[in-house]
Amino acid sequence: MTQSTIPQEEELKRYIRDVADFPKPGIVFKDITPLLKSPEALKLIVKAMVEVCKADMPDYIAGIESRGFILGMPLAHELNVGFIPVRKAGKLPAATYRQEYTLEYGTDVLEIHQDAIEPGKKVWVIDDLLATGGTAQATLALLEQSGADVLGMLFAIELNFLNGREKLSPCKTISLMKY
Amino acid sequence: MTQSTIPQEEELKRYIRDVADFPKPGIVFKDITPLLKSPEALKLIVKAMVEVCKADMPDYIAGIESRGFILGMPLAHELNVGFIPVRKAGKLPAATYRQEYTLEYGTDVLEIHQDAIEPGKKVWVIDDLLATGGTAQATLALLEQSGADVLGMLFAIELNFLNGREKLSPCKTISLMKY
Repeated sequence: MTQSTIPQEEELKRYIRDVADFPKPGIVFKDITPLLKSPEALKLIVKAMVEVCKADMPDYIAGIESRGFILGMPLAHELNVGFIPVRKAGKLPAATYRQEYTLEYGTDVLEIHQDAIEPGKKVWVIDDLLATGGTAQATLALLEQSGADVLGMLFAIELNFLNGREKLSPCKTISLMKY
Repeated sequence: MTQSTIPQEEELKRYIRDVADFPKPGIVFKDITPLLKSPEALKLIVKAMVEVCKADMPDYIAGIESRGFILGMPLAHELNVGFIPVRKAGKLPAATYRQEYTLEYGTDVLEIHQDAIEPGKKVWVIDDLLATGGTAQATLALLEQSGADVLGMLFAIELNFLNGREKLSPCKTISLMKY
């Protein structure tokens, strides 16, 4: 499991804003909206993601709702592959696979269309943040239901101290910015 | 208000799937996931959006959560401009402008960061679907609060029979696929 630093890490981190006490007191939120607002930073993060995925070319990019949509779509477009949305319960109109997972309070459900990914197709999964890893772990289980070959999971930001990476082992897990 | 057809309309429509009785009985849902899954269709829709926006170049692309993120981000990346997310209540961490709007049952709130758009900056607003126009109208009011100069609103799909376009007048309103 590589923990190696990507070359763009320090430059990308200049565009991340710390917002104290969000979503609740004591939490420091890593806000990516300044990065999205800058055309230079957008180019930089898309380039970094393309380099990671090109080393092991996928058939599809899967993005987790909703900030995984933001990062996954320009990546899919640049790689010239299709994009598969992983959505919250009740949003996808056709037949879905479902995966329940545990949150701090209660449970939540992720879904993917049953015809989204043909068995054996290679997929990179994209999200903005790897924190405790619950959502990412549920996404892996969901893609397993669909028969996808998950090449790896790619995150813009990883909060190392929450050890989310351990939940995803042995799946290859790469993050562009580590804190 | 132009109702003219874009050259890619018929080709794009081949990738839209009708799903009956979603989200409730009697509604035919226009599903864009087959379009997102096809690299050829992705290229086609991004090219069509780029052509619309290049005729009146913006400083920013604003995308409405969450399918407006899917379409807005590759567009911003191709145009080499920044991306501004318009989000549901409680998702953005820093100080926001808020806009309440009426749904079929009850109300909802959209937010944008107060420092997202400098007054006078030019913005194209992107969403997947123009139906009754309630969400789009609220987004216009929200961008007015921020002092943005809205160049136009661009939708992947428009349901003509719901007359959502009237709510957005006199804002330029363009849709790639009309039904």
